[in-house]
Amino acid sequence: MRDEILQMGKRAREAAHVMAKADSRSKREVLEGVEEMLHRERDSICSANEKDVTLAQERGLSGAKIERLRLSDKVLGEMAGGLKEVASQPDPVGEIVRMWTRPNGLRVGRMRIPLGVVGIVYESRPNVTVDAAALCIKAGNAVVLRGGSEAFHSNHCLAGILRRALERAGLPPEAVQVVGTTDRQAVLEMLKLEEYIDVMIPRGGEELIRFVAEHARMPVLKHYKGVCHVYVDDEADLEMAVRICMNAKVQRPGVCNAMETLLVHQHIAERFLKPMGEAFRSAGVELRGCEQTRAILPYCLPATEADWHAEYLDLILAVRVVKDLEEAIDHITTYGSQHTEAIVTENYGRAHRFLQEVQSSLVLVNASTRFNDGYQLGLGAEIGISTSRLHAFGPMGVEELTTTKFIALGNGQLRN
Amino acid sequence: MRDEILQMGKRAREAAHVMAKADSRSKREVLEGVEEMLHRERDSICSANEKDVTLAQERGLSGAKIERLRLSDKVLGEMAGGLKEVASQPDPVGEIVRMWTRPNGLRVGRMRIPLGVVGIVYESRPNVTVDAAALCIKAGNAVVLRGGSEAFHSNHCLAGILRRALERAGLPPEAVQVVGTTDRQAVLEMLKLEEYIDVMIPRGGEELIRFVAEHARMPVLKHYKGVCHVYVDDEADLEMAVRICMNAKVQRPGVCNAMETLLVHQHIAERFLKPMGEAFRSAGVELRGCEQTRAILPYCLPATEADWHAEYLDLILAVRVVKDLEEAIDHITTYGSQHTEAIVTENYGRAHRFLQEVQSSLVLVNASTRFNDGYQLGLGAEIGISTSRLHAFGPMGVEELTTTKFIALGNGQLRN
Repeated sequence: MRDEILQMGKRAREAAHVMAKADSRSKREVLEGVEEMLHRERDSICSANEKDVTLAQERGLSGAKIERLRLSDKVLGEMAGGLKEVASQPDPVGEIVRMWTRPNGLRVGRMRIPLGVVGIVYESRPNVTVDAAALCIKAGNAVVLRGGSEAFHSNHCLAGILRRALERAGLPPEAVQVVGTTDRQAVLEMLKLEEYIDVMIPRGGEELIRFVAEHARMPVLKHYKGVCHVYVDDEADLEMAVRICMNAKVQRPGVCNAMETLLVHQHIAERFLKPMGEAFRSAGVELRGCEQTRAILPYCLPATEADWHAEYLDLILAVRVVKDLEEAIDHITTYGSQHTEAIVTENYGRAHRFLQEVQSSLVLVNASTRFNDGYQLGLGAEIGISTSRLHAFGPMGVEELTTTKFIALGNGQLRN
Repeated sequence: MRDEILQMGKRAREAAHVMAKADSRSKREVLEGVEEMLHRERDSICSANEKDVTLAQERGLSGAKIERLRLSDKVLGEMAGGLKEVASQPDPVGEIVRMWTRPNGLRVGRMRIPLGVVGIVYESRPNVTVDAAALCIKAGNAVVLRGGSEAFHSNHCLAGILRRALERAGLPPEAVQVVGTTDRQAVLEMLKLEEYIDVMIPRGGEELIRFVAEHARMPVLKHYKGVCHVYVDDEADLEMAVRICMNAKVQRPGVCNAMETLLVHQHIAERFLKPMGEAFRSAGVELRGCEQTRAILPYCLPATEADWHAEYLDLILAVRVVKDLEEAIDHITTYGSQHTEAIVTENYGRAHRFLQEVQSSLVLVNASTRFNDGYQLGLGAEIGISTSRLHAFGPMGVEELTTTKFIALGNGQLRN
């Protein structure tokens, strides 16, 4: 198997050289071709997916896991929509980012180029096969995909479509490769291929991400968890604060950019928490608070140290009353995951300080944490949200799947 | 020792929080303070350095290694000059890189922030202690340094100066930490601290860099080697080509951006290689060529497969006659190290194609490979030249020691 993975890496590297030169039109043809085939080959996709679902049911997987596995009409429609969107985005490759002239007349610039070969290790959702590959192709990369064993048949069917679409557009089908075996040893072998895979992107639970980070010899773009905070300042518009906090917690509680801890300035704690608590209570949110919070909201459960670290991904919220902005920032620095933090305030100086001092991938003033998302921020489709700072910090779109090289145009310049 | 390294990481992380907020003036004060102390404490620096040199001589280290260890007046002068230069550069932290407005009125932008804690593992040259720390401080980072055992006393003396300068400027001395023990186990422990060190930068031989890349759990910015090429096209200005090739090979042969392989278009091989060969011969360059080269230059030695891969760092050059631009690019793709490649040509289309298709950190037209250097490209002092594509590709200056976070300014925006 070791040799099989190695050969796969080599083929991907060769395909990446061709992909890097591919013109925008061919890449667009691939994405439009895949979109068309998703419709035309709907039956074979669904029957491959049915196999996976049946096997999962036989193995007794949880209902939630089986739901994630299923390629429903809704999921297929979203995949097609995503392809359309990525196809219509501008091609990032070849863009001259900046250009300047040196005193000796040498014109120096930075040109955007693909990363090369992107490795993606993911868990149950088979739509990742198409969503991730589409972004990689758009950015001129080759991609090596290793999905979860539960989605084996679905992933192979979708990868087949991607490869045929590449071939039809005159591009190498080896630009999309799927690791055939599903045991973890195959992932380990992949993680050693620093010569053939330029970056690894794990998508899934924290355990998978830690495994990849620990063993990969190439760089890893990763996102552990989102423990997101909203701080309501004593100079906040309290009605706006209630709306923002409701949206941040309740609009979709199961995602990484939902609020998990609410921090409230002591001076408005009583005035704000009473209506806020009622709103949460009527939305079915369980509150776990510090002592001061519980003195104001008697129905609030006591929070323990673990609650400040928790990513609930559920209708549960930790609440803490803080002395001032400084204590709020300290709390975020200590317990946060550098994902998304918001302040609600009408005070200019404090908004300014929060923006400067909170070092999360997205820092907001007077808006919901739920905006930390590629589409919402205007970057287009995303391949994940990075909470580590190297290369990309925050939502990673097509541009984050490229890098820049330096170019220099001379007329005989020599170094002294 | 494990615990000692862990505590060091924790202290660095705490210092990094303070450094991220430090104003430009304080950071400038630190660098100017260090520069001043390099002069004032010259005697104690030299006596610490003398200890290292004596020990190295007793251990029988090579003359070249002892030279690298020595803090001569020239090296001290260069360190002071580097500090002055970095101090005078603009502060990258807080810069708003871009800003745009979403349809819902949310104003979204990217703000430059420090990376956090930078780990540097390096070998014998003690000036790296000051050069690297200065760049990290300028970019608002904390730094954990682990130098070579041979430079132990020099590194501690220089780190002491850095820490005192930080303290005088009201910044935490823990922003510069030096790993006290010099065995490799300490490096291994450092490489596990992904929670406290955001990026590792190894500086030294290929063996050290591979060791760090293999064991680090955090991202690594690395530069393996520079196998740099010049391709002389059949439409080149041949006199310019001779000048550029001489400069690329001879001006300073021991550095990573010197030319190691010369590729020559078959149609001008004879006309170009005769004067070029003479020029190299009179400069003492040993030539190792393909059969066609040897037919033109009888004094040229035969090249083997190993020569196409070689980074000589010496007055030796591999020479190959190629059929055309395509074969030249194929050769570079197969044997190059993605460091620096140049084309010499007066043909617009080929210059264009070379710029597009060669994926090295610097690609030049009609200029010497020796320009791949932070100062030469106009970026200022550099901490190294990255030949891997994530985060930074090419010379890494102060800006490459930062990242960007997203910021969003709203007035009550909620997500639908």
